[in-house]
Amino acid sequence: MENQKGYHVAVVGATGAVGEQMLKMLETRQFPLASLKLLASARSAGNTVQFKGQDIVIEEATPEAFEGVQIALFSAGGSVSKALAPEAAKRGAICVDNTSAFRMDPNVPLVVPEVNPDAMADHNGIIANPNCSTIQMVAAIEPLRARYGLERIIVSTYQAVSGAGAKAIQELNDQTKAIVNGEEVKKEVLPVGSLPKKHQIAFNVIPQIDTFLDNGFTNEEMKMVRETKKIFGDDSVAVAATCVRIPVVKGHSESVYVELKDDFELEDVRRLLAEAPGIVLQDNPEEQDYPMPADAAGKIETFVGRLRRDLDNPRGLHMWIVSDNLLKGAAWNAVQIAEELVARNLV
Amino acid sequence: MENQKGYHVAVVGATGAVGEQMLKMLETRQFPLASLKLLASARSAGNTVQFKGQDIVIEEATPEAFEGVQIALFSAGGSVSKALAPEAAKRGAICVDNTSAFRMDPNVPLVVPEVNPDAMADHNGIIANPNCSTIQMVAAIEPLRARYGLERIIVSTYQAVSGAGAKAIQELNDQTKAIVNGEEVKKEVLPVGSLPKKHQIAFNVIPQIDTFLDNGFTNEEMKMVRETKKIFGDDSVAVAATCVRIPVVKGHSESVYVELKDDFELEDVRRLLAEAPGIVLQDNPEEQDYPMPADAAGKIETFVGRLRRDLDNPRGLHMWIVSDNLLKGAAWNAVQIAEELVARNLV
Repeated sequence: MENQKGYHVAVVGATGAVGEQMLKMLETRQFPLASLKLLASARSAGNTVQFKGQDIVIEEATPEAFEGVQIALFSAGGSVSKALAPEAAKRGAICVDNTSAFRMDPNVPLVVPEVNPDAMADHNGIIANPNCSTIQMVAAIEPLRARYGLERIIVSTYQAVSGAGAKAIQELNDQTKAIVNGEEVKKEVLPVGSLPKKHQIAFNVIPQIDTFLDNGFTNEEMKMVRETKKIFGDDSVAVAATCVRIPVVKGHSESVYVELKDDFELEDVRRLLAEAPGIVLQDNPEEQDYPMPADAAGKIETFVGRLRRDLDNPRGLHMWIVSDNLLKGAAWNAVQIAEELVARNLV
Repeated sequence: MENQKGYHVAVVGATGAVGEQMLKMLETRQFPLASLKLLASARSAGNTVQFKGQDIVIEEATPEAFEGVQIALFSAGGSVSKALAPEAAKRGAICVDNTSAFRMDPNVPLVVPEVNPDAMADHNGIIANPNCSTIQMVAAIEPLRARYGLERIIVSTYQAVSGAGAKAIQELNDQTKAIVNGEEVKKEVLPVGSLPKKHQIAFNVIPQIDTFLDNGFTNEEMKMVRETKKIFGDDSVAVAATCVRIPVVKGHSESVYVELKDDFELEDVRRLLAEAPGIVLQDNPEEQDYPMPADAAGKIETFVGRLRRDLDNPRGLHMWIVSDNLLKGAAWNAVQIAEELVARNLV
């Protein structure tokens, strides 16, 4: 690292489920750091977090704390991003924001590096990281969209509890233990912390992620719809999503049906995916080999399998997409954007 | 029951996950029995099973055992049905077969009483019970198909392990305990007992139910395709399925997209479903009220919610369908057919 330029980086929300993974990614990817600042609420300030074997003291996230920071990775909730990302940007930092605060802001690029890296150049101090369920889906569809054109997407998700944060992971663990031990199940976190009603997630399925909108879709589902169109830069793509929480800790799975504009051969689809950056083609049904969250957890790639042509629409394709929602779905995509900023001399 | 006619009934496979529920259904529905015979393999013969507080001794399932039987409920695997249902039928019994052995046989009606009860009249001694994932889906779609016509179905399932039998339930329980206690996870049953590779189901998702076919779909998926067309009596309906096993004990969930032929109003769709037999409309997003397997387990109805019009196709409708796979998906549908045989004087 001696001869390499280093950058002054801040991580806001370093103690959360995603923040932890951001630090892990900065470490394992050997991101060129000149300094690393960990920022959080006043409540967490003073605590220490390990990074590369050293203790780093968490500082309070104030506007002034961003002085001298070049890249700020935000994952401390939408309200923190809304308040502080503009302050950081004003002080010269490029913010990579993992919350939904700025994703649909027309002045903010929404970036998946495998799909629309060029959009980064238009940043005004803030680049948004898409929703976890969106990232892995567009990463897997992009090679096909680029080659054949994309008419529509219908997706049903199988989302891990870690997407709802550390408390939801704890809740799944606690509920599972209670059921296994014949004890009472406590429901305190899922499906949505801020809503009154709670549902059991252990050995259950909850067809609600985030709040409901008037059109009957949830916010999570509409994130997939809107973000996909923005990332692809194509409002004409039809997208419909059903987002579902299941009792898995890490790794979102997606059953995806796409209609392409041009005819395709399945062999070409397989080749395109096998060659695509960030994608692992895992599609050997005869060996019972297909993506599963237990295998994808801890990996940065997006895994794609169960490829098959629709039985009625020759331009319809079914696929099964799995990725670690805390990594490609959040922390890795953010650090990947930071790497890309460096590679493109944008910072 | 004194003045009511009673029937001589046999249950083949009474000790299995579905057989147990068949007995429970015969009991709770107060099915008019003149006699009840429990049949199983020679291995299980001699064991006793409780029914209405009495011990019934299991007899060996031989062709002769069906002498005098009027209704035989089969759930002991496809090979047992193939061997013995024709023998039972030859002796005058009407067999309701829960296996896949005869479902696609053109001489065998495939019946969901809410959908195609009239097909029962064409039985030749055997009536087939559809696949669990098919039954709840067609039951929920039928009121809409009858009113608006049906163009296509795209379904992704979230299937409980009990669909794979008692051993799979035990496996989920054992694996879950092992993980909670930090012990080694044993994989012996799922996804398919007869195939060499096994995958963990606890805290995981397996996108394989039954074996793979050359077209990339699994047998379970093609069951949903073919059985749906047969039950609706309409080969022109486009059906595509992705069948997925998740760590839930009882209750299959389905994310279903349908395209109807005529225009619809959502309010009419809601009313049709609310009034449909066997269906419970559970669709109050503002109260976070929607179907979930934890609520549907133990109930005979099919629960439908998350109704919303597609964002791009005005004749497209998204819905979420949940039912107890061992009850409406198997035992209850079979006993319901038996009730209907009685009501229609077909036995």
